[in-house]
Amino acid sequence: MKGLALLFTLLISLTCQADTSTPLSSWQDGASRQAIISFVQRVTDPASPEHVAPSDRIAVFDNDGTLWAEQPIYTQLLFVGDRVRAQAGENPAWESQEPFASVLKGDLAGAFSSSHDAPVQLIRASQAGLDTDSFDQVVRDWMQTARHPTTDKPFTRMVYQPMLELLDYLQDNDFKSFIVSGGGVDFMRPWTESVYGIPPERVVGSRTAKQLAVQDGVVRVVHEGTMEFNDDKEGKPIGISQHIGRRPIAAFGNSDGDLQMLQWTTAGDGARFALIVHHTDAEREWAYDRDSSIGRLDQALDAAAEHGWTVVNMKQDWKQVFPD
Amino acid sequence: MKGLALLFTLLISLTCQADTSTPLSSWQDGASRQAIISFVQRVTDPASPEHVAPSDRIAVFDNDGTLWAEQPIYTQLLFVGDRVRAQAGENPAWESQEPFASVLKGDLAGAFSSSHDAPVQLIRASQAGLDTDSFDQVVRDWMQTARHPTTDKPFTRMVYQPMLELLDYLQDNDFKSFIVSGGGVDFMRPWTESVYGIPPERVVGSRTAKQLAVQDGVVRVVHEGTMEFNDDKEGKPIGISQHIGRRPIAAFGNSDGDLQMLQWTTAGDGARFALIVHHTDAEREWAYDRDSSIGRLDQALDAAAEHGWTVVNMKQDWKQVFPD
Repeated sequence: MKGLALLFTLLISLTCQADTSTPLSSWQDGASRQAIISFVQRVTDPASPEHVAPSDRIAVFDNDGTLWAEQPIYTQLLFVGDRVRAQAGENPAWESQEPFASVLKGDLAGAFSSSHDAPVQLIRASQAGLDTDSFDQVVRDWMQTARHPTTDKPFTRMVYQPMLELLDYLQDNDFKSFIVSGGGVDFMRPWTESVYGIPPERVVGSRTAKQLAVQDGVVRVVHEGTMEFNDDKEGKPIGISQHIGRRPIAAFGNSDGDLQMLQWTTAGDGARFALIVHHTDAEREWAYDRDSSIGRLDQALDAAAEHGWTVVNMKQDWKQVFPD
Repeated sequence: MKGLALLFTLLISLTCQADTSTPLSSWQDGASRQAIISFVQRVTDPASPEHVAPSDRIAVFDNDGTLWAEQPIYTQLLFVGDRVRAQAGENPAWESQEPFASVLKGDLAGAFSSSHDAPVQLIRASQAGLDTDSFDQVVRDWMQTARHPTTDKPFTRMVYQPMLELLDYLQDNDFKSFIVSGGGVDFMRPWTESVYGIPPERVVGSRTAKQLAVQDGVVRVVHEGTMEFNDDKEGKPIGISQHIGRRPIAAFGNSDGDLQMLQWTTAGDGARFALIVHHTDAEREWAYDRDSSIGRLDQALDAAAEHGWTVVNMKQDWKQVFPD
């Protein structure tokens, strides 16, 4: 009977256990991968002096350039451009009115930089007047059909395979991962669960205003489209504090927009982890850092060197960039 | 071998399964309890035409008067009063300066109603200048030591036992429950996980402003204390949309401040559930509704009758009000 009991125990243990196959398999077995695994082991091992309770295992990820590609232009700007074009018929004045005129001429980057207010005007045009359900659907439809301008892939395939594995690895180790992005929160939430396994309530981002509309006793929440919160740079720790209410123990970014988030995360007590994805792979992805207008990585690269943060050299550290 | 295989399967199933003891045992087996159980069964049974995927099983709970007592005065106001008294020594001018003077004379309700700005001034005084870690600790310490003015119990024992069981029951059925309160989010988050099992990131509430403070390269998030978002009435659906990013399928409240949240929740497609806790028990708790200045329940009670929402008659429906 002792042998049978042992067999039972073994079988139950195997059945109830999470998958324990080799983690981070798209990562070369170098310093970056080892730093991640070492950190996770130190905070999850109950015997470790740096053990962290599961409820405090909060990890935050920037999105553009950290979880998916941000070149040659932020994905949300392409969405906004398509939304403006789709509504141009109902807005004939846009043909001669900036920033819309530049969008309609195909100069998206020019449209966004045509004036200080241009981004605000364009973002508002992409969502104002739609209720939350309708805007969700618009984003879902666009993500289904839109293609990346240089690779012609759906944007859901422009995500980084090694980062998907990292999200899985952290989840298997009872971390809660959040996205903390400068991008619009309502542009991300409709697809983050299916693409990253991150549910809408774990997405923090820039916010536009909404108002309540009551018609015949039916309550809807409607987008006004005016900027309300910019979740970038100094905004990221504020957004995390507003939304998550706890300081993360691990933060993942790729640009100066993530610097304050990494600083605040690592300023806490106990074991802390900060990682920067350095875009060094012009062949498989893009190579850019200190001089890029998109995803500039300058101060944060210096800070990483100063504080010993992990810097992922995409070309060397990743066996594979995008999913098959 | 077939019998052994069956035994294995049974044993594994028993070992891996969640607790399935009688749910909601502090609820009388009447219409309210049955309505809750019927709703949960309809949305969780995979064969039900009203089945809802676990990821969409979002439930929202008001806090004051729904999860814990709000009489004779909102708990947070007592906290604010204690904070003002604790800082009076450093602020001698407060002795003759409203609304602080009334607090120091022991007239807390009078202090809060002494002017339009009084609540804002008092709340700011309770937190301005503290960083997030320090304010968290102040709240934790207060919750450990403060006592309810009429029952002399710790506030963590002024929660409703039947609602704790409801939170457990929903969690056992793969719901995600959130608090959506008019109270300050930073006043609730330090203790909701230990008291309700609801982690900080699942608490939505009224918000005061914060700013980033950088000193010697160390980043902190510091409370400014000025009101930024009022998560009450029309604010609740907005707060849910900002924070959760999905419309709930079930909402639980007790006052007119919850009306729009209940309306928005029930205006969605598919199975929906709305419940109001009606305070009818002057002996074990308090009895109040249409004429109360705290937790007024008037329009929402009419709406409940009109739409067939579940109204909990506390005196009749709850075997027990507070935990032992």
